[in-house]
Amino acid sequence: MSTTNRQIRLAARPVGEVKPEDWEHRAEPVEEPGPGQFVGRTRVISLDPAMRGWLDDRPSYLPPVGLGEVMRAGSVIEVTASNHPDFRPGDHVVGTFGVQEYAVSDGRGAMKIDTSLAPASTYLGALGMPGMTAYFGLLDVGALRDGETVVVSGAAGAVGTIAGQIAKARGCRVVGIAGGPEKCGMLTGELGFDAAIDYRAEDVRKALREHAPDGIDVYFDNVGGDVLDAALTRLAMHARVVVCGAISQYNNATPVKGPSNYLSLLVRRARMEGFVVFDYAKRYAEAAQEISALIGAGRIKVKEHVVRGTVDDFPAALQMLFRGENVGKLVLELA
Amino acid sequence: MSTTNRQIRLAARPVGEVKPEDWEHRAEPVEEPGPGQFVGRTRVISLDPAMRGWLDDRPSYLPPVGLGEVMRAGSVIEVTASNHPDFRPGDHVVGTFGVQEYAVSDGRGAMKIDTSLAPASTYLGALGMPGMTAYFGLLDVGALRDGETVVVSGAAGAVGTIAGQIAKARGCRVVGIAGGPEKCGMLTGELGFDAAIDYRAEDVRKALREHAPDGIDVYFDNVGGDVLDAALTRLAMHARVVVCGAISQYNNATPVKGPSNYLSLLVRRARMEGFVVFDYAKRYAEAAQEISALIGAGRIKVKEHVVRGTVDDFPAALQMLFRGENVGKLVLELA
Repeated sequence: MSTTNRQIRLAARPVGEVKPEDWEHRAEPVEEPGPGQFVGRTRVISLDPAMRGWLDDRPSYLPPVGLGEVMRAGSVIEVTASNHPDFRPGDHVVGTFGVQEYAVSDGRGAMKIDTSLAPASTYLGALGMPGMTAYFGLLDVGALRDGETVVVSGAAGAVGTIAGQIAKARGCRVVGIAGGPEKCGMLTGELGFDAAIDYRAEDVRKALREHAPDGIDVYFDNVGGDVLDAALTRLAMHARVVVCGAISQYNNATPVKGPSNYLSLLVRRARMEGFVVFDYAKRYAEAAQEISALIGAGRIKVKEHVVRGTVDDFPAALQMLFRGENVGKLVLELA
Repeated sequence: MSTTNRQIRLAARPVGEVKPEDWEHRAEPVEEPGPGQFVGRTRVISLDPAMRGWLDDRPSYLPPVGLGEVMRAGSVIEVTASNHPDFRPGDHVVGTFGVQEYAVSDGRGAMKIDTSLAPASTYLGALGMPGMTAYFGLLDVGALRDGETVVVSGAAGAVGTIAGQIAKARGCRVVGIAGGPEKCGMLTGELGFDAAIDYRAEDVRKALREHAPDGIDVYFDNVGGDVLDAALTRLAMHARVVVCGAISQYNNATPVKGPSNYLSLLVRRARMEGFVVFDYAKRYAEAAQEISALIGAGRIKVKEHVVRGTVDDFPAALQMLFRGENVGKLVLELA
């Protein structure tokens, strides 16, 4: 076992895009677990669009990552030493352990996982926060009904791929919006979406008219900006717009672009609603069970984009997200 | 009885603010009522912010007023001749009879009113569309619960005055946003609002922090623009934003300003929802009964702004609305 713990800490609050100098690469000694604690070695680190928001010093659903603190991240660790009755060496555990090679935990917010059922990365994706987000966003916030027309933006991402496939499994017509022909081809060819719109190459509003001719019942928005505005022009009566994220706006140094077409909410008697997945923690088991069953039945295909490297590769991997270079759930797997 | 029927017709589609030359002032002979019809002389004409939207040639909840057509307007007419079994000369009738001195109707969408219970103008205000809008917007769309904190913009207008007073009657803390010290003084001094914010003179965001210290549970928006954005920064958890209108944006020749702060819907697990009052037509009687009772009990004070003149004064009266020159329900009473 190594005695150094390489970590990525927040060095400066980024303005606009996160720059290399906003991070500090540091090596600390690996801590020993105290009474009731365990220590583990990081196997896989999650990269999430929400991370950008955690870097800004403003009130949100979680406090910002403090300057000098280890970057917050979900990850899977393998326990190497333990004074905790529930966690033994060799156990794989998912939790918010941060961007570092080793983490100490008292078990709060940590959950043992079975890597014989699914790879560790999947507990950060389809069976982790992105899967939970897709499930509760679509079914609870979006109040999806079987057979409706669903449009998902950021459709080739971690949340979008799952949201679209859950909707397909419920007999919905599903249209994905993503960037580039490769992602779009994957959505229709591999994941069974009814249509895909390449927002970089197509007029989204026009394409929605074609692919959602009766209007959109549920619009699951991961991107905000112009794509949100286009979707608002195509809402069906009593539509639900699920505000899951706004990745197109997270790196803005200028104010967020608000949806100019929000008055279509009035014309279409529609609602736009936000949510934070943590509020559904008590029901994660329900969602994980359904998603597992759908994976088992081949009705959800798990898309993961694995970067293999060290914690020092975290900053570059995070940039991939905002450049849309990942397909499916992006993770950093430590060698 | 006069034999000419002066009318205001739409001559051109306005760009930005409505200009005098967008209207045609015309005199037609008064029509005779056909079988099953009645004719009446206009007593009071309603002026509504929504009228601006009806002038634009784009899909909305009602078709646009056609070029050359009599301007659509709610009004109260007094029946002068009738071939309809339910309407007799002398009856006062409310309906969408247009901006003209005489109107012929077959009774569809028309309702006899009792001007001994309330003046004709009140059937266009507190007991008409604005009252219905306030009632269903607040209670159904806003899902108002007793004791919550409610913020109303356009608070001194036809809808705002009623919405705020309904909320007060339900034990809510009510903050009104309006333009100018006179309106604000009226809200707190006369209508019993807990606080009023003058958006022309105050920093609305700061004032909301002071007057809604625990956050806004229901924000009833009549104005859009910067005021909406300010309110979004002060939402309580699970807040409801009722999109009733956006008078600050109706005269824009440029695109509507979307709410930059819409992502607070996510952080606060809140929703923004639009509605059109016509959808509640089957329940108007319920609302009218409750509002009447509140008026009777002195818990709703009816504010009306009466312009006395002829149909030719309609264009100028409509401008008053967009300049915020009215207090309460603006009507044009024909001499």
